[in-house]
Amino acid sequence: MKEIEQTLEFIVEVEKLKAVLRKTKPVGLERRENSAEHSWHVCLAALMLKDYANEPVDIDRVIKMLLIHDLGEIDAGDTIVYASETAQQKTAEAEGVKRVLAMLPDNRGDEYFKLWCEFEAGESAESRYARAIDRVPPLLHNLRGGGHAWKENDIPKEKVFAVNSRIGDGSRELWQVIEGKLQQAVSSGILK
Amino acid sequence: MKEIEQTLEFIVEVEKLKAVLRKTKPVGLERRENSAEHSWHVCLAALMLKDYANEPVDIDRVIKMLLIHDLGEIDAGDTIVYASETAQQKTAEAEGVKRVLAMLPDNRGDEYFKLWCEFEAGESAESRYARAIDRVPPLLHNLRGGGHAWKENDIPKEKVFAVNSRIGDGSRELWQVIEGKLQQAVSSGILK
Repeated sequence: MKEIEQTLEFIVEVEKLKAVLRKTKPVGLERRENSAEHSWHVCLAALMLKDYANEPVDIDRVIKMLLIHDLGEIDAGDTIVYASETAQQKTAEAEGVKRVLAMLPDNRGDEYFKLWCEFEAGESAESRYARAIDRVPPLLHNLRGGGHAWKENDIPKEKVFAVNSRIGDGSRELWQVIEGKLQQAVSSGILK
Repeated sequence: MKEIEQTLEFIVEVEKLKAVLRKTKPVGLERRENSAEHSWHVCLAALMLKDYANEPVDIDRVIKMLLIHDLGEIDAGDTIVYASETAQQKTAEAEGVKRVLAMLPDNRGDEYFKLWCEFEAGESAESRYARAIDRVPPLLHNLRGGGHAWKENDIPKEKVFAVNSRIGDGSRELWQVIEGKLQQAVSSGILK
């Protein structure tokens, strides 16, 4: 019973991710996306695009990774992908994930902290694919939303291409399609 | 390439779930929850409570079920769990799920439509557990949030106990803990 109580406390705590705002707006909405709904969206995207991963992936591990990949933002906040990653920010996120997962009974969180570290390192087939998918919805938001977050944050096209080319590490075919869309965005003037 | 394009259209379409508002407010927030962030929350809750399922469950199937369980609401909207289910509402949801999943290439959606039907029927171990978990966060919202959705929708305590006792079909231990919390809510006067 005590273990269930502890897990319910964890469930309430992680809900704070619903208040962490990201930089892009979902297609059709005039508000910024939060990290909880983003997490759902990337899980579903990963599931439906799994056949295009470069390497065989265990999709169930990918989904678990994506379910927890942003938990560190409860304490550390969201950082735009185009910002240079600072060691301070990375440490704050790792500490945040660790704190939240430590709320689970019987060190059950340890397994998920390892999974989070694997995602961050991006060195396994699953993490390469998960990190590729993590980039897709915000790009679609910008592509369908006049490049709003690129403009608001002064992100030049060179940076958009360079940072997102990591999609190709997880799925070359997906990057080929997205790269084409980014080129169209340059042609139409929403990406400069 | 065409298949990837189609899948990206699906990814943009399902994003509409971020605009479907539910009846409860997340703990600590002054706005109603949307069905996309709810979907993430129940996936994570299911993962962390899996050891308390009455029967052995394939947690990966449970998570996939919960990722898609609300897709029908894009067309049909959210209905409070305490409303009597009408055949019309159920049909609208099933048609909605079918429409959205049909956007996927190569009839890939068929497998997920079956999974959605399994969830709705609630007759397998996985669906019993998934349906139990689906009830947990809204109860926590009410319990931590002064019973706001019970009050706003005039839900009497008899109905709250009766409808949520289905949690016991998925996890007796979890229902025991939640039932205790509901009794406390009656004692403290937030559930009448």
